[in-house]
Amino acid sequence: MQAIKIIAFDADDTLWANEPLYRNCENRFAELLSNYGSVSDLRNILFSIEMQNLSSYGYGAKSFSLSMIEAALKISNGNVASNVLQEIIVLGKGLINQDVELLPNVKEVLQFLSQKHPLVLATKGDLLDQERKLLKSGLDSCFHHIEVMTDKKTSNYERLFRQLDCNPEEFLMIGNSIRSDILPVLELGGKAIYVPYHTTWQHETISEAELKNQNITQVENIIDVLKWFE
Amino acid sequence: MQAIKIIAFDADDTLWANEPLYRNCENRFAELLSNYGSVSDLRNILFSIEMQNLSSYGYGAKSFSLSMIEAALKISNGNVASNVLQEIIVLGKGLINQDVELLPNVKEVLQFLSQKHPLVLATKGDLLDQERKLLKSGLDSCFHHIEVMTDKKTSNYERLFRQLDCNPEEFLMIGNSIRSDILPVLELGGKAIYVPYHTTWQHETISEAELKNQNITQVENIIDVLKWFE
Repeated sequence: MQAIKIIAFDADDTLWANEPLYRNCENRFAELLSNYGSVSDLRNILFSIEMQNLSSYGYGAKSFSLSMIEAALKISNGNVASNVLQEIIVLGKGLINQDVELLPNVKEVLQFLSQKHPLVLATKGDLLDQERKLLKSGLDSCFHHIEVMTDKKTSNYERLFRQLDCNPEEFLMIGNSIRSDILPVLELGGKAIYVPYHTTWQHETISEAELKNQNITQVENIIDVLKWFE
Repeated sequence: MQAIKIIAFDADDTLWANEPLYRNCENRFAELLSNYGSVSDLRNILFSIEMQNLSSYGYGAKSFSLSMIEAALKISNGNVASNVLQEIIVLGKGLINQDVELLPNVKEVLQFLSQKHPLVLATKGDLLDQERKLLKSGLDSCFHHIEVMTDKKTSNYERLFRQLDCNPEEFLMIGNSIRSDILPVLELGGKAIYVPYHTTWQHETISEAELKNQNITQVENIIDVLKWFE
């Protein structure tokens, strides 16, 4: 791969597991409110409230906690027991304070590449959540720059390029979300490698129509990224 | 003022009003729960829960919303009415979506200084909250760099200096919190100007003992900062 100046990595579900922890929370949420509807109905209401709140709350565990509380009040028509709300608060704090489980080969890939290029962590979500996870991961010394973005649209990447003093074509993004990590970077003329993860949040999924005519570079495991640097 | 390379401004209650909006929320919270205790008792419980949650939640409106909900459940021993919880959620969203009210002379000071030095916005809190407020303020074009910090301790400023490639003695910080904006910067050898605001969050206040022997430069209004550049 020619003329790469900066390599950026997504964090959640690219470097460490995240989505399964949220899905576990959702399952517990559905159990707690099982008197009020089926698992799929409860999940749909929670997801729709998350989407309504996205522009106000943004991403991350605190936003998710607030949306779970709002959904529990709505689903139960205000009859939810207070101990259920207390457990939802505890569930949310559990997400915040959980251990960080690195995905296979991540450490080796970062250690190798960090000797060749400045690495940037480019993640969206809650600033405190992400700084805490990075510290727990033990990977912080691999990164030259940490960028927590409020979103990952083309305008956010354009700002990142300016901050990094990097042309799009010199920028390589590696991540597990086609919508957030791959398409906006390709649209700006950058390079991107898609490393799929087994669980993807509904908000990050993408239709076949949107994928049409997209020439996306995909590897099955992050270790295969290294082949591009041989 | 000699050899200043970068001027950094705090945001909340330095550039725009913030603390009064939180105090209004607290007052409404106390009204909603007035069956369960006096205003001062209710405030004290809310503040102690905010402090317990600070390391998990950090600063900002979402953290405050979650702490208000937790406090309401605790204060009422789980008996709080669901419409009160719903109103607390709405109060929190109101904080997030409120208009930004610039403090007097802020615009003039920033426009003048931005022609002489790169200006940095150095604020703690929630990334999305602060980006949204900056956009609403219309001040974003004055700033060369926006740094939303998870906290404002010396280690956070040290990291900022590295990112800005700036020695401490070339750095001037202007803000309304002695604890967060002034003392850590002075301790590192930087310069700081204290611009008090009429309302200060209990967590940001500082004792006389801590202030002893501190030689703090103070101005009554932000416009007086310009005298340092004549």
